Amino acid sequence: MDITFVTGNKKKVSELNRILDTDFAHTALDLPEIQSLDLEEVVQAKAKAAYAKLGTPVVVEDTSLTFNALGKLPGTFIKFFAQELDYDGLCQLLEGKEDRSAVVRACIALYDGTDMHVFAGECNGTIAYTPHEGEGFGFDCIFIPEGYGKTWSEMDNDVKDSMSHRARALQKFAAYLETV
Amino acid sequence: MDITFVTGNKKKVSELNRILDTDFAHTALDLPEIQSLDLEEVVQAKAKAAYAKLGTPVVVEDTSLTFNALGKLPGTFIKFFAQELDYDGLCQLLEGKEDRSAVVRACIALYDGTDMHVFAGECNGTIAYTPHEGEGFGFDCIFIPEGYGKTWSEMDNDVKDSMSHRARALQKFAAYLETV
Repeated sequence: MDITFVTGNKKKVSELNRILDTDFAHTALDLPEIQSLDLEEVVQAKAKAAYAKLGTPVVVEDTSLTFNALGKLPGTFIKFFAQELDYDGLCQLLEGKEDRSAVVRACIALYDGTDMHVFAGECNGTIAYTPHEGEGFGFDCIFIPEGYGKTWSEMDNDVKDSMSHRARALQKFAAYLETV
Repeated sequence: MDITFVTGNKKKVSELNRILDTDFAHTALDLPEIQSLDLEEVVQAKAKAAYAKLGTPVVVEDTSLTFNALGKLPGTFIKFFAQELDYDGLCQLLEGKEDRSAVVRACIALYDGTDMHVFAGECNGTIAYTPHEGEGFGFDCIFIPEGYGKTWSEMDNDVKDSMSHRARALQKFAAYLETV
């Protein structure tokens, strides 16, 4: 199957091709996302919109970061939270809260115009008090995975890939690809 | 012009008909909203989606509540913030912040399949430390308009209507309706 990975984020492309050891084509499309805190719903709508523009099988991915003290927020809106508050401000949202636990989720949707397949992965952790320097992208600098004393931005790629939400979703995706 | 007000919120219908002294038909449609902090963009997309379903001139309205200390948040996502945090939790988002100022905006879009008209209104104020009891709906219980010592939920309708974001947008809408 000739699949195009639709994303504007080149770091996601390298992460996907690194983890799956593939060389997927990718393209950036300006796709409107729907306003919902349900990650699976958001990613399915995005896959349909991408297919409507390209007309060939597409893969899209989306991520949410939920602070348990804030219900389902920031959740699927994490991009907007980061843009408005920066990572410092995100950490401060939990100021005075005892519960700094968080869940990162990734959903990958594969859509060929007929069948929709969704592969999900998640990882539990806590939110740092302030951003930590390092590699990675997005909220890697504030997310401390369960069982570790440092953020994803401070870890080597292979350590992050052994547990990350996206790696877990990609493993399911890879397993599926082997069956078709 | 035969216009349908599309909203699932009956309190918005009564407010609109009370302020404009009209008797607009209304209908509830389940419309997907786009994920954007730009209120005008959200409301225009909603008007197009409503028109696509009904095929007759539509009016839609949407509101945002911005806490100045949080960039453009909660903004257009206020419904989700209220759902996840309740009004207590919304007040707590500003815990420890000196700046409790906020802006409420309303955007009304009229779309007939060809022309789009958008009418906007806003009102400045501050966010209470805790929700106040009273009438009104939505975030009326936590929004204290500039120059007043109480929330909209504690005011009579005619006082609120003299300054509210929605009333200001509706006045522009009413003025336009007189010209067509």
